[in-house]
Amino acid sequence: MNNENLDMIGFQIISNVGTARSLVMEALAAAKDGDFVSAEEKLEESNQYFVEGHKVHAQLIQKEAAGEKVEFSLLFMHAEDQLMSAETITLLVKEMIEMYKRSGI
Amino acid sequence: MNNENLDMIGFQIISNVGTARSLVMEALAAAKDGDFVSAEEKLEESNQYFVEGHKVHAQLIQKEAAGEKVEFSLLFMHAEDQLMSAETITLLVKEMIEMYKRSGI
Amino acid sequence: MNNENLDMIGFQIISNVGTARSLVMEALAAAKDGDFVSAEEKLEESNQYFVEGHKVHAQLIQKEAAGEKVEFSLLFMHAEDQLMSAETITLLVKEMIEMYKRSGI
Repeated sequence: MNNENLDMIGFQIISNVGTARSLVMEALAAAKDGDFVSAEEKLEESNQYFVEGHKVHAQLIQKEAAGEKVEFSLLFMHAEDQLMSAETITLLVKEMIEMYKRSGI
Repeated sequence: MNNENLDMIGFQIISNVGTARSLVMEALAAAKDGDFVSAEEKLEESNQYFVEGHKVHAQLIQKEAAGEKVEFSLLFMHAEDQLMSAETITLLVKEMIEMYKRSGI
Repeated sequence: MNNENLDMIGFQIISNVGTARSLVMEALAAAKDGDFVSAEEKLEESNQYFVEGHKVHAQLIQKEAAGEKVEFSLLFMHAEDQLMSAETITLLVKEMIEMYKRSGI
């Protein structure tokens, strides 16, 4: 797989997980306002975008495992970092939302 | 270092830091139940796995610094992302556990 | 861009975002002590280092987009991971500082 294709895939990942990340932060903002129903909806919506981004990533890993050489690209590395970062943020923001729910602060 | 060796190292990192990450989340679950002794034990256990994963990573960085060319591999990049993500999660979950301890929520 | 230059850039990124990350954790420590003025100052100082690290990263992405081939280097990948990790930690620690502010725990 050459760099041009990989860059296109990188843009797809960045776009999807960027939206996922924004929605997670909106979910946290809703939880701070005590609106846990809206927070839950935002998290579900976020997950749909994250899954899209992750699908592309998983397909590439499988291609490489099947023997196809994947060339390095800075943009693609950045996309993968964004993916992982969105996952970490989601995991921890969910915990923060639970804290707001439990504490009522 | 060729890609096959790098993939093996990638799998070792993913396996170790994956376990480390799971144990950190178990520590947080224990803290939510008010069981801070168990939380502390899980964190220590997690750290042992993390250190194993990190050792492999550090050895590679040193090899590259010594002039050995390390080829790019998607799987290995993913392993490095997992390592960094586990480190970030551990740092922040420890802070959350302290919040549960201080607030008693 | 060859690996030696890329490694130099990697070291610059690691140095800047490492300092940014330390200052963010100092901000959190200040917030835990109830010193939110000092927390705010540490966050601003941290941001200056982060911006420096991020500038270097952005210039490289632009070079690659302009057609310049960027070679893979493990050290540089590590630098990019550190950059992304510092960004994630900053985002979430700011939220934790707000929790300390709101709850007074």
